Amino acid sequence: MNSINKLTELFQRFPGIGPRQSKRFVYFLLSQNQSYIQELIRELEVLKQDIVMCDSCFRFFSRNTSKSNLCSICSNGNRDHNKLMIVSSDADLENVERTSVYDGLYLVLGGTVPVLDKEPGKKIRVKGLTDTVSARAQNGLSEIILAMSANTEGENTGEYVEAVLKPISEKFSIKISHLGRGLSTGLELEYSDSDTIASALKNRT
Amino acid sequence: MNSINKLTELFQRFPGIGPRQSKRFVYFLLSQNQSYIQELIRELEVLKQDIVMCDSCFRFFSRNTSKSNLCSICSNGNRDHNKLMIVSSDADLENVERTSVYDGLYLVLGGTVPVLDKEPGKKIRVKGLTDTVSARAQNGLSEIILAMSANTEGENTGEYVEAVLKPISEKFSIKISHLGRGLSTGLELEYSDSDTIASALKNRT
Amino acid sequence: MNSINKLTELFQRFPGIGPRQSKRFVYFLLSQNQSYIQELIRELEVLKQDIVMCDSCFRFFSRNTSKSNLCSICSNGNRDHNKLMIVSSDADLENVERTSVYDGLYLVLGGTVPVLDKEPGKKIRVKGLTDTVSARAQNGLSEIILAMSANTEGENTGEYVEAVLKPISEKFSIKISHLGRGLSTGLELEYSDSDTIASALKNRT
Amino acid sequence: MNSINKLTELFQRFPGIGPRQSKRFVYFLLSQNQSYIQELIRELEVLKQDIVMCDSCFRFFSRNTSKSNLCSICSNGNRDHNKLMIVSSDADLENVERTSVYDGLYLVLGGTVPVLDKEPGKKIRVKGLTDTVSARAQNGLSEIILAMSANTEGENTGEYVEAVLKPISEKFSIKISHLGRGLSTGLELEYSDSDTIASALKNRT
Repeated sequence: MNSINKLTELFQRFPGIGPRQSKRFVYFLLSQNQSYIQELIRELEVLKQDIVMCDSCFRFFSRNTSKSNLCSICSNGNRDHNKLMIVSSDADLENVERTSVYDGLYLVLGGTVPVLDKEPGKKIRVKGLTDTVSARAQNGLSEIILAMSANTEGENTGEYVEAVLKPISEKFSIKISHLGRGLSTGLELEYSDSDTIASALKNRT
Repeated sequence: MNSINKLTELFQRFPGIGPRQSKRFVYFLLSQNQSYIQELIRELEVLKQDIVMCDSCFRFFSRNTSKSNLCSICSNGNRDHNKLMIVSSDADLENVERTSVYDGLYLVLGGTVPVLDKEPGKKIRVKGLTDTVSARAQNGLSEIILAMSANTEGENTGEYVEAVLKPISEKFSIKISHLGRGLSTGLELEYSDSDTIASALKNRT
Repeated sequence: MNSINKLTELFQRFPGIGPRQSKRFVYFLLSQNQSYIQELIRELEVLKQDIVMCDSCFRFFSRNTSKSNLCSICSNGNRDHNKLMIVSSDADLENVERTSVYDGLYLVLGGTVPVLDKEPGKKIRVKGLTDTVSARAQNGLSEIILAMSANTEGENTGEYVEAVLKPISEKFSIKISHLGRGLSTGLELEYSDSDTIASALKNRT
Repeated sequence: MNSINKLTELFQRFPGIGPRQSKRFVYFLLSQNQSYIQELIRELEVLKQDIVMCDSCFRFFSRNTSKSNLCSICSNGNRDHNKLMIVSSDADLENVERTSVYDGLYLVLGGTVPVLDKEPGKKIRVKGLTDTVSARAQNGLSEIILAMSANTEGENTGEYVEAVLKPISEKFSIKISHLGRGLSTGLELEYSDSDTIASALKNRT
């Protein structure tokens, strides 16, 4: 198999990329000058050295932005260390961070748990989860916010995490909360589903 | 102008119907036998006689379903007459009713108020709104729920209605609430906007 | 069942209209003043009197546009009566007519024949087809153009019509042609299917 | 700027990739084990050595598939060397090749010429085009098929190429043809544009 096909196969594993677009990537690279490809190779080479996983929240961060094994959020004394928001992915964390409405800490599960999954513990960072929560529990953690997507897999992940954390949260009296459900921006009442309306009514303000 | 073009024009005023689909309607009618068209004409003729507007909530209902000038919801003694949900349209009301999570009364505004509209009072049933709320205020009304779509026009309508009702709500100590904002069913955290995340965080449960 | 529901059911038979939009039509009508509904009723009443089917091509036309039983196209001496384009619907005919590139006559089948249909003769105007073609064959008809949509049902309809017309076309030496296949406006070569590329190559000009 | 952001920027230049998906690529890579990234780097390194451009048709091909500087199509004695199809991109060539209906040679322009572009000669391989066509003209080339997408840019590219080739094609009496226009697979007559209908009528078969 030649380079075009091999690279096409490798790009096909990228999230959301099918065989056609994958091949377009390869032709695109062939049409670029060598310096662009060299830069791409160089950045791929340093990626795993430059980027490390935070020892506490498990998000990826650049060594240059923090001198410790903790990311800039976890090592920031101005953030509220008594609140911990649990999210599925780095992308979720970044999107919440963009809103600037949350000042606590995070924990990135690194995945979601599909419904009826037989080995949920292999889909997310369970050990990291209990380790971090246990450590923080002894340092004043008062609330865990489960910030899951409002779909079946998100809900299932939330329930699984809640069950895993139950012993610790009960022992240390840590409140476990969930992001509020309701009408999201742009939603029309006429086209809202029952669950959303029921939540919006319950959470009326 | 011939019948095809005239009917095409009339159907074009139907919500969401453009000139092409409008014409397809006419050709569809031409291909149907006369009995279908006769039935359509008959139902159009009785529509405004059969269907009346409720004196209290202004929704449309069939004379056959209620002996009074009040619809089956307004005249239902088992519903909570102390709660009044204000919606924009009959379709909104029906969608909420389908969820079976609300047991109070409704009021249909019959429209929405666009932002910066110069005559908001002409877009919705303002007189009906104040008349009904005033009457209910003297009969134990304790909460008004503004159930608007989560878009700019819905929010603007909600603000306008709240301002209109302020004198009455203050005089009779009626609470005015809004449907809760948050993650609606299916929404992924990664793609949620700032407002929705902020609301979901605030309304966490 | 009340008028709202009955009308909703009747509108649901309109092409492309589901239960929700159908109901929106009814609420829309309820919100209109009576004069609009009266006009709609009046036009529905005269529709089948005003609009008749052309004796020769079977398109619908207004009595006002022609004094005979033939539509304005069939009775137009300036059009080429030796060419007959066979289309499925009035909408197809109108779309071709809009292009102003065809100066012959038409024949509207009033439907298409699904693949493996057991009674193809009930889906289109077979008797009208053979009657008109036979009559025109004796008056110099030299070409029949099958103008079907480029999908399976269109192709099947074309084959069926061709088989039906074979005895007449052979007897009178009438050429039967099909609309050319190839790249349609906007199509990119990279995303064209095999059939289209094969046709485009064969019909290269 | 850290590796995540640098790589995000580099991936953003990939065709059809925006900032969000670009970042998802990086997080995806971070979640993969090092061997996948190593393989990606290795293939990127050999890409430009393994893949060369054909001296005659300018498509990319693997050195392994051909011993000469000509690709497997150009060096294939069983193909018709008297026909030359000119396409914009390797992807276009591959799509035509997939249909197995064309047995001649190709020439890849490596781009398209936007309308009113001031330097059309910089958008496509003009020198390669005239060199190859001149060489083939002296070896029996009888037809050049312009296989452009059926959009404005494709048509403009076709016109530009035709003008460039005019001196050679006239001198050697080479026919220049264009892919046929018409109804492409799936297109409905009712929704066809004027140009397509006009072409389909002209190219009727």
